[in-house]
Amino acid sequence: MAARASNNTPPSLRKVWAEQETFGRAATASSSIMTSARAIVSHHPLADGGWKIEDVDLRPLGEGELLVEMVATGVCHTDALIGSLPDGVAPMAFYPRVLGHEGSGYVKDVGPAVTVAQPGDPVLLSFSYCNQCEVCKAGHYSNCNAFNDINFGPQSGFQLKDGKNCGGQFFGQSSFAALSIVRQCSVVNAKGLIKDKKELQLFSPLGCGIQTGSGTVINVAQAGPKDAICIMGLGGVGLSAVMAAKIQGCRKIIGIDKVASRLELATELGCTHTVDGSKLGDKSLEDAVRELTEDVGPSICIDTTGAPPLIEAGCKMIRNRGKYIQVGSASFAVMLDHVNVFEFMSAGKQFIGAIEGSATPTEYVPKMIQWYREGNFPFDKLMKFFPADDFAQGLHEMHTGETIKPILMWS
Amino acid sequence: MAARASNNTPPSLRKVWAEQETFGRAATASSSIMTSARAIVSHHPLADGGWKIEDVDLRPLGEGELLVEMVATGVCHTDALIGSLPDGVAPMAFYPRVLGHEGSGYVKDVGPAVTVAQPGDPVLLSFSYCNQCEVCKAGHYSNCNAFNDINFGPQSGFQLKDGKNCGGQFFGQSSFAALSIVRQCSVVNAKGLIKDKKELQLFSPLGCGIQTGSGTVINVAQAGPKDAICIMGLGGVGLSAVMAAKIQGCRKIIGIDKVASRLELATELGCTHTVDGSKLGDKSLEDAVRELTEDVGPSICIDTTGAPPLIEAGCKMIRNRGKYIQVGSASFAVMLDHVNVFEFMSAGKQFIGAIEGSATPTEYVPKMIQWYREGNFPFDKLMKFFPADDFAQGLHEMHTGETIKPILMWS
Repeated sequence: MAARASNNTPPSLRKVWAEQETFGRAATASSSIMTSARAIVSHHPLADGGWKIEDVDLRPLGEGELLVEMVATGVCHTDALIGSLPDGVAPMAFYPRVLGHEGSGYVKDVGPAVTVAQPGDPVLLSFSYCNQCEVCKAGHYSNCNAFNDINFGPQSGFQLKDGKNCGGQFFGQSSFAALSIVRQCSVVNAKGLIKDKKELQLFSPLGCGIQTGSGTVINVAQAGPKDAICIMGLGGVGLSAVMAAKIQGCRKIIGIDKVASRLELATELGCTHTVDGSKLGDKSLEDAVRELTEDVGPSICIDTTGAPPLIEAGCKMIRNRGKYIQVGSASFAVMLDHVNVFEFMSAGKQFIGAIEGSATPTEYVPKMIQWYREGNFPFDKLMKFFPADDFAQGLHEMHTGETIKPILMWS
Repeated sequence: MAARASNNTPPSLRKVWAEQETFGRAATASSSIMTSARAIVSHHPLADGGWKIEDVDLRPLGEGELLVEMVATGVCHTDALIGSLPDGVAPMAFYPRVLGHEGSGYVKDVGPAVTVAQPGDPVLLSFSYCNQCEVCKAGHYSNCNAFNDINFGPQSGFQLKDGKNCGGQFFGQSSFAALSIVRQCSVVNAKGLIKDKKELQLFSPLGCGIQTGSGTVINVAQAGPKDAICIMGLGGVGLSAVMAAKIQGCRKIIGIDKVASRLELATELGCTHTVDGSKLGDKSLEDAVRELTEDVGPSICIDTTGAPPLIEAGCKMIRNRGKYIQVGSASFAVMLDHVNVFEFMSAGKQFIGAIEGSATPTEYVPKMIQWYREGNFPFDKLMKFFPADDFAQGLHEMHTGETIKPILMWS
């Protein structure tokens, strides 16, 4: 307990963890029947071949928890990032666990005090939060003081067939499982929002990657027609940012990547210019972008990669009063050691951290669905569907760039 | 010419510089009579005893320039910083020159195309800008693309009695002189704003230090009653920030310094809490401030010092979604090498550079005068007046902390 709790861990969560210490001993369980399901279990880091699909058991539901039968889950780089950490290097680095945080499905059962949905309701899942800290009370759930504990911490959920405990509730949902115990604040009730199961599968990644990219442009950068925006990294998050920049009417939308097919798709989705980072020759990336932006640089730069050379280039390229927004997860040790304090000050630049597009999913997911139906947010062009059994192939194609957003199908 | 021009130097400024290359050869001079005046000349860095008061000559006025008879000038740490640089270490490091950038006085003569004031008008002086770049066109003059060139660059103004050129127009004004050539965009016409010469002397520092501190709280941080604000460094800028935080009704105003008299004055001016940085013992500064802010840290932290340990502490102490604002000039080589990218991102923190409080002086200086007259902005408590001849004493007392804002009197 002590090892996983941090200074920010709220007492209520400490209590939940204490109750969960022994698998299956949830204090307010609504059912004592063990449920079994298939799940992709991360036993060890991904590169070591440590992820395997197998049957697991689920503990009974606790207060504020739902049992969700997943129909699909998007795969995100954060799954790969967290599931590639060496065991124990950080509080969020542990095994075995079930990852997955872009899930969609139908509610199969609900625990006590659940108000967001009833059995049978279709749901789209998003991140989780404490709903008690001053940040949550102000409505900025994605920056919850306990965000890391709640979304990445070692919360119980599953038991392996050999009896070992297996971490669940990754992002409150652990959607890499055909059945999972979901915290109710991760739930967007999709009743009335979707037409059929096919749409529920299609919309599964809205609550993380698509929301993160588009929400950063709309909620964080508050981009508009006067802005020249540069988006570094054209994966699911970056391309969602491109679509949002087009919706906002940004006068220049510059996409950066090294994969030709992504650059082509970016142009199709709204980029007015693209820069192939693999073909810069002697030119620096910041100079290449400045040439496209009246030699003063973009007014907004969003990095979705977390790669130090891009962070450095982005902080340099923005114009005076420009906003640089960090969306991609950098490795834990990366510092802003190339950002010059005097230069940032005199130019009035801003470095802004953002996650989940600063979105409130219950409000923002319906907006994205509306844009999609209006034809302005064709996120379906990013997707490729795989049976859950073929998760390794989906991950492989995401890493090579062949597939932007793999969707694993549970049914 | 080439050496002092940078990529951001606008063509119009290059033209002015070219015209000024030979002293006294201003293309559109309104008068050919040389004028003589006393001035504090920085011949060498301050620590080498390189600043001396002596007579200098002034060249004729060029287009858009005014001859101002100074009545007073505030002394700011930026004067000491720039006038302490070893010769040649940066484009803004050169000698001899006349510094000073918190001047007030009466217009004695105007060059062609001057529209802001007429001879006899009282004026308060502020920073300068190009008024041509996209940042100026958007009304954000303090982040002008040519700000450093125009305010710190080697522009002509004076001639030493031995015939050597001597740099002028520091911040468009070089107010460390009894008479100086001022660029018209540095001018706030005080006709109708002031009652008498004594007020003109009293208000001299409004256009830089006082504006910077208060404007950062009001324009940049947009602080309000929900905010807990921490202000690091309680010199003229920091104490002006304290007064502004009180005007804005911030619920907690925490001042940090190591000088007891400054901490007392800060409490008198509005701080609800102070932390003496010299009496922390084993406690870190960020922990000391967090204890005063519900253990989550302030929502806003403003650093007026540029000191790396304070920058690091400030970036750490702010709460999730908090704003850290850099106002104090760090040494040129200081990087943000203690800011962790992942932590800043997941906490949704912001690092914001700001100068001159993002204020438009012609609008903001009258506001500050109004607050002063209403009794809510007692900046006069920061000041001590010295005859210009005693500038060294004023600088000494500013460095020891005995005097917050020395004002040098020219008449």
